[in-house]
Amino acid sequence: MTSFVNRKTIRKYKKEDVPQDKLESLLYQASRAATMGNMQLYSVVVTRSEEMKEKLSPLHFGQPMVKGAPVVLTFCADFNRFTQWCEQRQANPGYDNFLSFINAASDTLLYVQAFCTLAEQAGYGTCYLGTTLYNPQGIIDLLRLPRLTFPVATITLGVPDEDPEQTDRLPHLAYLHSETYRPYTAGEIDIIYYFKEQMDENKHFVEINHKENLAQVFTDCRYTRKDNEAMSAGLLEALKHQGFL
Amino acid sequence: MTSFVNRKTIRKYKKEDVPQDKLESLLYQASRAATMGNMQLYSVVVTRSEEMKEKLSPLHFGQPMVKGAPVVLTFCADFNRFTQWCEQRQANPGYDNFLSFINAASDTLLYVQAFCTLAEQAGYGTCYLGTTLYNPQGIIDLLRLPRLTFPVATITLGVPDEDPEQTDRLPHLAYLHSETYRPYTAGEIDIIYYFKEQMDENKHFVEINHKENLAQVFTDCRYTRKDNEAMSAGLLEALKHQGFL
Repeated sequence: MTSFVNRKTIRKYKKEDVPQDKLESLLYQASRAATMGNMQLYSVVVTRSEEMKEKLSPLHFGQPMVKGAPVVLTFCADFNRFTQWCEQRQANPGYDNFLSFINAASDTLLYVQAFCTLAEQAGYGTCYLGTTLYNPQGIIDLLRLPRLTFPVATITLGVPDEDPEQTDRLPHLAYLHSETYRPYTAGEIDIIYYFKEQMDENKHFVEINHKENLAQVFTDCRYTRKDNEAMSAGLLEALKHQGFL
Repeated sequence: MTSFVNRKTIRKYKKEDVPQDKLESLLYQASRAATMGNMQLYSVVVTRSEEMKEKLSPLHFGQPMVKGAPVVLTFCADFNRFTQWCEQRQANPGYDNFLSFINAASDTLLYVQAFCTLAEQAGYGTCYLGTTLYNPQGIIDLLRLPRLTFPVATITLGVPDEDPEQTDRLPHLAYLHSETYRPYTAGEIDIIYYFKEQMDENKHFVEINHKENLAQVFTDCRYTRKDNEAMSAGLLEALKHQGFL
């Protein structure tokens, strides 16, 4: 069993399958994570077919893990199931609002992390695809997600076929605050990001992108204002479409 | 080491403290969780002082864990630190939008679950307070959270002083879908919630609340439309205030 501090994201998987009973066992174990009012406000759509992976792939911007993994899991915030139960019992559900979306998304993300930890302890590799939120409507349509559900995270899963270096992390004092949030001085910011800026790999990114520094690689290439604002609009639109706004 | 499938929420803690070095070690280990673009879009505010617990308590509706735990941790989505770094490097950050909030909140919630799992493996008990999102502006003001930060989860932490029964969970087939989301038949909904509805504890809740069934306890007493809609408005207002909308 690998210790959590040694974990890494795995993007290449062996052809070996993940047996359905093993997957179901991990998904059930993960449900021990905390959940609001014990409502379990999530669903998981399992993609195994080549046809569906082919269609999911462009929605995740062609990241090779989607077609390369034996299993792709789309974790969805889900107030649909609970609402249907309420309606069948002559109860009046009021979960078509923004707080309910955030509550269900929180439940879902705790469940996702619990699942990943358990899957890794069982010897599998995982990759978290943040792209799920970039084009949610496409995923909603493809997976036929009903009103009051919303895709919040995608995990690709399989037996590791690579052993990459661990990526860096900030010193924990960078994000630790005592009693109240301590504003950062300019000098503290320099120290916090110093190691990241000095890494050869990151210096290389600055060079090939013809930027002055690493921060500009993030703001001008990787996560731009223009993209973020366009995708925010799409995200809010999709939340309306699914009945949460 | 307790297995994850045996975990329980712990609401009563011994007087025993959680040493700061132990806490910091767990917070650092948890940072191995997946994080978008390796940006680590979170901060943690540690509350140990009686004075601050006294002030936090009403913001969490007086739940006794806040004053009863040696440590209260408020986990915040944080694009402030990253934005400050960008600004110091003449980069133009564009993270004052809704997508950036959801991205940072996702990072934070994965981190929270990783932390809880590690803390429990180390023998501590945790309780997840969903109330963080019910009155975020009060928490923002008390903890002096700056623009582009937002409280998303609170964990109370300590050495367990109770050993409660495990709560029930739905059968995993309730939330598992293959290839596309499968609409639930009325009969499936009945089966999914049958065990929960038959529990003595839940029958007791129905009785003392003078309701016809358990679903009505949720919709009329615990999570009402009126409360959800009022708190949704407050949540959106606070997101605007913090620069994310």
